[in-house]
Amino acid sequence: MTHVPVVDVLQGRFAVGETVTVKGWVRTRRDSKAGLSFIAVHDGSCFDPVQVIALNSLENYADIQRLTAGCSVSVTATVKASEGKGQALELDAERVEIVGWVENPDTYPMAAKRHSIEYLREHAHLRPRTNVIGAVTRIRNCLSQAIHRFFHENGYVWISTPIMTASDTEGAGEMFRVSTLDMLNLPMTDKGEVDYSQDFFGKETYLTVSGQLNVETYCAAMSKVYTFGPTFRAENSNTSRHLAEFWMIEPEVAFASLDDVAGLAEDMLKYVCKAVLEERADDMAFFAQRIDKDAINRLEKLVSSDFVHMDYTDAIDILKASGKSFEFPVEWGVDLSSEHERYLAEEHVGGPIVMKNYPKDIKAFYMRINDDEKTVAAMDILAPGIGEIIGGSQREERLDVFDRRLEEMGLSQEDYSWYRDLRRYGTVPHSGFGLGFERLVAYVTGMQNVRDVIPFPRTPGNAQY
Amino acid sequence: MTHVPVVDVLQGRFAVGETVTVKGWVRTRRDSKAGLSFIAVHDGSCFDPVQVIALNSLENYADIQRLTAGCSVSVTATVKASEGKGQALELDAERVEIVGWVENPDTYPMAAKRHSIEYLREHAHLRPRTNVIGAVTRIRNCLSQAIHRFFHENGYVWISTPIMTASDTEGAGEMFRVSTLDMLNLPMTDKGEVDYSQDFFGKETYLTVSGQLNVETYCAAMSKVYTFGPTFRAENSNTSRHLAEFWMIEPEVAFASLDDVAGLAEDMLKYVCKAVLEERADDMAFFAQRIDKDAINRLEKLVSSDFVHMDYTDAIDILKASGKSFEFPVEWGVDLSSEHERYLAEEHVGGPIVMKNYPKDIKAFYMRINDDEKTVAAMDILAPGIGEIIGGSQREERLDVFDRRLEEMGLSQEDYSWYRDLRRYGTVPHSGFGLGFERLVAYVTGMQNVRDVIPFPRTPGNAQY
Repeated sequence: MTHVPVVDVLQGRFAVGETVTVKGWVRTRRDSKAGLSFIAVHDGSCFDPVQVIALNSLENYADIQRLTAGCSVSVTATVKASEGKGQALELDAERVEIVGWVENPDTYPMAAKRHSIEYLREHAHLRPRTNVIGAVTRIRNCLSQAIHRFFHENGYVWISTPIMTASDTEGAGEMFRVSTLDMLNLPMTDKGEVDYSQDFFGKETYLTVSGQLNVETYCAAMSKVYTFGPTFRAENSNTSRHLAEFWMIEPEVAFASLDDVAGLAEDMLKYVCKAVLEERADDMAFFAQRIDKDAINRLEKLVSSDFVHMDYTDAIDILKASGKSFEFPVEWGVDLSSEHERYLAEEHVGGPIVMKNYPKDIKAFYMRINDDEKTVAAMDILAPGIGEIIGGSQREERLDVFDRRLEEMGLSQEDYSWYRDLRRYGTVPHSGFGLGFERLVAYVTGMQNVRDVIPFPRTPGNAQY
Repeated sequence: MTHVPVVDVLQGRFAVGETVTVKGWVRTRRDSKAGLSFIAVHDGSCFDPVQVIALNSLENYADIQRLTAGCSVSVTATVKASEGKGQALELDAERVEIVGWVENPDTYPMAAKRHSIEYLREHAHLRPRTNVIGAVTRIRNCLSQAIHRFFHENGYVWISTPIMTASDTEGAGEMFRVSTLDMLNLPMTDKGEVDYSQDFFGKETYLTVSGQLNVETYCAAMSKVYTFGPTFRAENSNTSRHLAEFWMIEPEVAFASLDDVAGLAEDMLKYVCKAVLEERADDMAFFAQRIDKDAINRLEKLVSSDFVHMDYTDAIDILKASGKSFEFPVEWGVDLSSEHERYLAEEHVGGPIVMKNYPKDIKAFYMRINDDEKTVAAMDILAPGIGEIIGGSQREERLDVFDRRLEEMGLSQEDYSWYRDLRRYGTVPHSGFGLGFERLVAYVTGMQNVRDVIPFPRTPGNAQY
């Protein structure tokens, strides 16, 4: 390809006087009485479009004057120092080729005006053409790249855990069934149940809710591993924090304690936020200006301050002593609700908190029992503005304690036989956590709803495109 | 954490005489009559284990003599120059802590002996502890990291396309249905059909077979994009090349011709193969020695030679003139089968081929019609040993031609309304391709079956773990 990205022009990779070709879409066109037009051309490579100056001496100037938002163009032009304010460089067009018109500019769904975020959601296939979703997309990419880079630089191995699974796992949430059975002609057993032995996998099969148990098997061989893939919850929640399909990052570390992975989580969050500040200053300036004025400040603060560690038991005392009247009363043993988490992170600490050692009865069966026999080595990271962003734990590596816990929970050893094998053969202490990727993107950008930080959100009633 | 990875010891990051702690699993133990034991300890950080020398003066030497393959240990030791051949450095143990025993060494499924690849597949949760699957895992990770890095360095934006979709797409293959309906109590319509309006998404919903159509929407805004995620085929194929769940990489490039993306594919393959040669020489040496003696040579050749471009029409002539008797006869218009592809790549060219411009009737509806009206701007990359590894095309960007093609194929405009919008509003020529990640890993390692290059393979009848 012989054209260059807009970002290379704006960042001065070409000298004034050089000829370049850029290709992209018109954001705006403005005609001057002096016999020339200013065309803002964007191509997604950075936040700003490049300003193209087209003189009326161009042979297709009549066509150029019909350009509207969304038209695609190929512009060959000379780089020049800008006389206006804003950008340092702009383009003097030698040739403006119109590649694709907009069918009917008056009804073009992404016409150049402000659209509500809900309207954009209903046009998910066109919304990346807007400033806001374009910026979200670049930040999302920046975060994803930084996450892979962080783990790779630190010796972690990416593991793809299965998406479809027949494994019986404890209910981290409602699950989607996957099947190829003919729904109008279901095979049945003598007992009047659906005969899943005739299904594709010969068993009832679901979409995964977490890769953790699977990735532990690779942790018990490769030591430092992580997943980065989609996970699923068939919960009928219509909130700004829930999706039926979302991406999760789950590192798992052999010979690591709870504090080790709390440190890992802190290092990772700082690394990826730093990457965004350094690499996407243009998009962050937009979020700070238009979405959340605290957006940049919040990231800078996260990068430069140490996370406060707090025991669940101490947090309960703090909440009780706060004098606040909460909707849900606080008592040792209850799960913290959003109002409690936000009070602690936003008012009491004013920054991210690593909350540790929760009562065992409100946590999962695989978490390691502490010596007090009442709490488990679990941690959540609570961030101002969004609440829980990371949840992790040390895993129970002692076979006898694990088996006792299975029994308490009414779970069968047989269903967990392969998971138990990791405790039978060279067991090691190990810990890990899960980070919901969309919550991270929402936290970083200040976007209020996770549906706006994933290209095609899946929620109850919505699986279009 | 205060311990160090084995790879850092073996690569000489610590001086002779320094004290370090390594943690991992015993691969072998050998006792010498001189009153000492040699313990090979691996932790997944590189192919080789480190040799630990434990003298009988250690207080738990009796226990050390009971160590078997798979036991986990923590070793604090002094780095020393090795007296034996093989490795330059080894460890003089000051302390060997036994972290986890193997329950019954005689029945330990991964005991230190050669296991068949089929046996390992049946123990997918323990097989990463073996040399071969450990090496596959590191190569798979290396390739994945290199793919993200390649696209990131070249200005591509990673897009996560949806996994669950209610969108009507042309049948790239059989699909898995996703549902939360109660199978024993299905809601029915008056017409006697299942009432999917009562399902989670209010519509019949499937697992995606490709992210291409979705990612084109982002291409039409961000210009250079790619997907890297799981895709699904509910085909009842029990071959060494097919999985029901596999990972795919799908770049899509605005203003790019078929030759542009053929060049992109070649650059990408060379980049990632070079990364493997440079970063995973240890694992590649193992594959060359034990799995496929040509493994390293094949990658070096791929990196250093230009891919041969060939028109489908010319390929048919070459096959006809070859004098070979093929099982499936060759005639213009037929799809090439594996025997044809292998003859061309392995015997005729002796390297990867970019095969272009296939008859339109054997290709998908979205591919761009060439001026001859008989062929489409499609390309496949055929690699020696594995056949088709990449399939791509220029996409039909002309609305009138696209609509004509929909009609020919009996597809409705309504079902593709959002895809048509991309052609109605600022359409641009664009092209892309799909790379099956497991086929790439198999190609690079020389592994014969894709089931052995993904952690938990899903095939008909198999969705364990």
